[in-house]
Amino acid sequence: MEFVQGGVCAAKGFKAAATAAKIKYEGRNDMAAIVSDLPCSYAGVFTKNVVKAAPVKWDMQVLDGKKKVHAIIANSGIANAATGPDGMEACYETAEYAANKLGFDTKEVLVASTGVIGFSMPMDRVKNGIDSLSGILEESHEAADLAAKAIMTTDTHDKQIAVKINIGGVDVTVGCMAKGSGMIHPNMCTMLSFITTDAAIEQKMLQKALSEIVKDTFNMVSVDGDTSTNDSCLVLANGAAKNPIIDTYGADFDTFKEALFSVCKEISMMLAGDGEGATALVESVVTNVSTKEKARALAKSVITSSLTKAAIFGHDANWGRIMCALGYAGVDFDPNKIDIFVESENGRIQLVGKGVALDYSEEVATKVLSGTKVTIISDIKTGEESAVAWGCDLTYDYVKINADYRS
Amino acid sequence: MEFVQGGVCAAKGFKAAATAAKIKYEGRNDMAAIVSDLPCSYAGVFTKNVVKAAPVKWDMQVLDGKKKVHAIIANSGIANAATGPDGMEACYETAEYAANKLGFDTKEVLVASTGVIGFSMPMDRVKNGIDSLSGILEESHEAADLAAKAIMTTDTHDKQIAVKINIGGVDVTVGCMAKGSGMIHPNMCTMLSFITTDAAIEQKMLQKALSEIVKDTFNMVSVDGDTSTNDSCLVLANGAAKNPIIDTYGADFDTFKEALFSVCKEISMMLAGDGEGATALVESVVTNVSTKEKARALAKSVITSSLTKAAIFGHDANWGRIMCALGYAGVDFDPNKIDIFVESENGRIQLVGKGVALDYSEEVATKVLSGTKVTIISDIKTGEESAVAWGCDLTYDYVKINADYRS
Repeated sequence: MEFVQGGVCAAKGFKAAATAAKIKYEGRNDMAAIVSDLPCSYAGVFTKNVVKAAPVKWDMQVLDGKKKVHAIIANSGIANAATGPDGMEACYETAEYAANKLGFDTKEVLVASTGVIGFSMPMDRVKNGIDSLSGILEESHEAADLAAKAIMTTDTHDKQIAVKINIGGVDVTVGCMAKGSGMIHPNMCTMLSFITTDAAIEQKMLQKALSEIVKDTFNMVSVDGDTSTNDSCLVLANGAAKNPIIDTYGADFDTFKEALFSVCKEISMMLAGDGEGATALVESVVTNVSTKEKARALAKSVITSSLTKAAIFGHDANWGRIMCALGYAGVDFDPNKIDIFVESENGRIQLVGKGVALDYSEEVATKVLSGTKVTIISDIKTGEESAVAWGCDLTYDYVKINADYRS
Repeated sequence: MEFVQGGVCAAKGFKAAATAAKIKYEGRNDMAAIVSDLPCSYAGVFTKNVVKAAPVKWDMQVLDGKKKVHAIIANSGIANAATGPDGMEACYETAEYAANKLGFDTKEVLVASTGVIGFSMPMDRVKNGIDSLSGILEESHEAADLAAKAIMTTDTHDKQIAVKINIGGVDVTVGCMAKGSGMIHPNMCTMLSFITTDAAIEQKMLQKALSEIVKDTFNMVSVDGDTSTNDSCLVLANGAAKNPIIDTYGADFDTFKEALFSVCKEISMMLAGDGEGATALVESVVTNVSTKEKARALAKSVITSSLTKAAIFGHDANWGRIMCALGYAGVDFDPNKIDIFVESENGRIQLVGKGVALDYSEEVATKVLSGTKVTIISDIKTGEESAVAWGCDLTYDYVKINADYRS
């Protein structure tokens, strides 16, 4: 497996574009399109929030139809959530308008929105945006870059990744663009994440691969414990690589899944590391737990703890908070067995042995915690399963960004 | 029911004292004692964190013994959590030393600690502290004040309350002192909360009353989502009021329970309002839900949401975050039915009607949200149960306090 450039245009046959539709932002692109002329198998996972944004409901309906799809139209600025029946009407109009413009059926167009909850979509601007997008679609890295930037909200940088693998003797590429910085605590999948691949893969197998992978990637990310109304992860597979179609479990499925996993994992880490106000990506590794599910719960509890997050911002080896967060994860374990280590580009140090403080150097611990990627390793010593979760530190800037996000 | 002065010394027959034992802090009192010469019925509820502090385990053992108790010895500065077998030994020694000094049995003395996790108790200082405390015990409001202040950590003020009721023709008093500011998200009971009463009540009935009440008081408070290792709420009832003993359900039990509820509710609000860095007490009222349990989950989800908390700090009527937090509470409801109001000493305004934004004045909303007690009312319209939860806003100071708490 090889990491390559090109984001959502890395895979063959995918075009992208971005435009400034002035949905809410001024002076920047805020609409993006991803289009494949070849019909695509489609998989999706969505927020489990009861308050689902209209685009989430639209995409779930399309997915239920099990039809192949061709395009994703996305915008930033307004989330089209809590907008009542008008919200669904806006999705329908967007898909219909784009479908007419691009020569597809309405139900072959997916939509996605991110931004402020509660405002209605300005449909005239959306339609102007689609007019503009349809004229500039391009199969290029530059177009992929622009599209990835157009869906950003409080993100400080765009998130893209692509990998190349070999299936049945041909190159297959999987690429992704994603956005997300605040309101990140996916309970199904996270924020907006669009994955394109030229793999030939049956819809059912694509969904299986995605559903399994999100459990250990997007669902293990938390910035602030708030599960968004708009979380969506969509995968389009257009078959342009001409590999033998993947329609069953086996070596090809495994190879593809490994690539999809890498893409999802790398993007998850990018999302966590760019959490609102973050100065560090925090990785929580929990090892030797009796079940995978318990390992996930423990790992996630650590990166969700506000107190642990604030301590990491302060480069303070306050391991008691880590232990406390493990303790309230809802998983039974023996506190007198566990070891805790921290690790970063600045080194590694053990803080806790068999549940009590070791005589470690606070100076070294502070140096380790000053890294930009801080890994907390908690060895529970009661089984063989492990899990990894990603979050970030809690900073003044998180409060600043969120005290008045709407203005 | 009448609110009265005197905290834990408001009820007859309770003495208190405070001293500077230099457990961790310098230049302030950090140990407190509450003592009743009459033997007390005792009820307790404790943290559900798997990592329980040693004093919690000690008090649970004592409670299991179902013996009457006489005293509580508490300290701030060090939590005596994650301290291994030494931690339990420290509790035993503390109780034994105090028992000898005061003329009780070891298992008649409860202990409680709050502070940094992971440090061992300096037993020489603890014993000196007990020597000092035992010489200055007093049945006075001043002593209650000093004791309430001695158990503070990051609290900005002491928390005390007392109420007087009439049972069987005699005055009965229930008083409380509590501490807690950070690491507050009780999953059983919260932080340290000591309640004294001169009511004559059977141990079993006292425990029933407390266990029922905490569900709607302490367990509905959250400052930061972190369930502490030390949460303990202890009630001592010494019978000095000489009311007909409460040994069954009935009018007397109900009257007593009402008083205990008031005490717990007022203290819960004080704890939330003094949350680390808080500028406002946030009250979340959720009405018309199908079950009480669901109402509680919804109410608590709102005050736990970092995004909602930050928006309130910014006086920003970002109701989308409230709706989002209701949505991920794990309770099914129809988002298109709900109404949302905010209210404070500055007025009241409806933000959402039937799930969508009303045409409200942002100026008025901001004024309402600038209050020091902000109430968010979410009407779910699917049943008849309601619940209230208390939290606070998320501020720069929360981050500041927690980025380097140990130094």
